[in-house]
Amino acid sequence: MVTDWTILGLLAGGITSAGFIPQLVRGFRTKKLDDVSYYMPLVLIIGMSLWLFYGVMRRDLSIVVANVVGVCCNASLLFMKKLYSRVDFEAG
Amino acid sequence: MVTDWTILGLLAGGITSAGFIPQLVRGFRTKKLDDVSYYMPLVLIIGMSLWLFYGVMRRDLSIVVANVVGVCCNASLLFMKKLYSRVDFEAG
Repeated sequence: MVTDWTILGLLAGGITSAGFIPQLVRGFRTKKLDDVSYYMPLVLIIGMSLWLFYGVMRRDLSIVVANVVGVCCNASLLFMKKLYSRVDFEAG
Repeated sequence: MVTDWTILGLLAGGITSAGFIPQLVRGFRTKKLDDVSYYMPLVLIIGMSLWLFYGVMRRDLSIVVANVVGVCCNASLLFMKKLYSRVDFEAG
């Protein structure tokens, strides 16, 4: 039954990680992320890194995969936010 | 040792869920969520609901708590986005 839970976990993790992709696409297209808080991706990176550690320690593949993708997505979002707000100091 | 992992998991879950709070606060203050994609909270709600199911099935308290809070935060974000874009049809 462990395999079934792993599949469910991977599906849950895949969908959760995929949630950040439309935000990345929107940001890339509009080159505007002013309404996105700096702290959201920042705090999510810290939290997801802890989840990653938790997943590794509990040997739970679903948690590991989901959070590796999640950290990458949020790091990209943070980078884009920084990049696009360089010329616009109002953004903060 | 299970208790230690539960504490780590709760910490990870707490921080990850807390990540959405600055976004909610920013949205509430500025009344603008134009740069936030509709699909991000929508897809996250679906993914986190699956995580919640996974957590219940695996009897993992950390996963359950983290995802209940996560679903609530993202539902609020989606509601705010819908509310604030009512008068601004450009937002989409």
